[in-house]
Amino acid sequence: MSDVHGDIPPIREGEKLLDFDPAESGDATLAFIGTIRTPWRRGDCPKNIGKAREAGQGARIDLAKGYADGLTGLRVGQPVMLLYWMNQARRDLIQQMPRHVQAPRGTFALRSPNRPNPVAMSAVTITSLDPAAGMIGIDAIDCFDMTPLIDMKPWLPSVDTPAGTELVTALA
Amino acid sequence: MSDVHGDIPPIREGEKLLDFDPAESGDATLAFIGTIRTPWRRGDCPKNIGKAREAGQGARIDLAKGYADGLTGLRVGQPVMLLYWMNQARRDLIQQMPRHVQAPRGTFALRSPNRPNPVAMSAVTITSLDPAAGMIGIDAIDCFDMTPLIDMKPWLPSVDTPAGTELVTALA
Repeated sequence: MSDVHGDIPPIREGEKLLDFDPAESGDATLAFIGTIRTPWRRGDCPKNIGKAREAGQGARIDLAKGYADGLTGLRVGQPVMLLYWMNQARRDLIQQMPRHVQAPRGTFALRSPNRPNPVAMSAVTITSLDPAAGMIGIDAIDCFDMTPLIDMKPWLPSVDTPAGTELVTALA
Repeated sequence: MSDVHGDIPPIREGEKLLDFDPAESGDATLAFIGTIRTPWRRGDCPKNIGKAREAGQGARIDLAKGYADGLTGLRVGQPVMLLYWMNQARRDLIQQMPRHVQAPRGTFALRSPNRPNPVAMSAVTITSLDPAAGMIGIDAIDCFDMTPLIDMKPWLPSVDTPAGTELVTALA
């Protein structure tokens, strides 16, 4: 597994591996546009963003050099989708046995970080914005400290919720 | 622009380019896990997924070989997030002037396909599922035919909507 760092969990009964490594496909390349700074490391990371919100500890994005003009028009209180790269995940696990399921489940039926392209996404809210310093505060996130950021987009209910869904929002 | 195909739109007043090409960063590599088949090409593509839904024409995903086990546990009617690669976009446009805005807006404040990492995402609903053939029907999407797929995940309101947002309509 070319891009797994740290401990690789053992394969459990019912789990299946791809017989190739998606990391070697090289169909397209990503640029890391920043770094997500969080209080979390393996071992003390909240299980999901709901738990991270309950923990009441904010997080921060440090944008990489050159990207600050991309923030023009964003504002504090705005909800955004973050896309980030789970660089401690494995990419060849196509069927998984998380502790909470009874039968093997496909990777595309799970939000597990282990997936052919370990791109995670979460809807967060901007709490502070300093374009000159390339710093963006966010309300909460459940990823490890130093996770690479690959994109940030305005959260739009018309695109980011499925047809037939209506939301009541208390957004700024 | 190493990975732009077809027409590259001209730069408009107020737009800014990065002085480097994110396509050359190579911080991580993506594997294309399938292809999105749609009725749309440049020129007749709906402006957004809302318009695509109104058009009433479904779409389909053809999974690449080897990934079918990843579908285990998904079901018809389930909402999923698709992540896909806007391979006709440019990656160095950091401040943009879409026709509907009055002042230049940062790329991270827009859903434009032109962005350092052109990963698009939409919440769609599964309408048919044939794991043996690696085929997944979806209700609607507004991307060009043959757009490469990079991920599919269950849509989860707890992760995919910002804090303070509540659902009022139940899903199938």
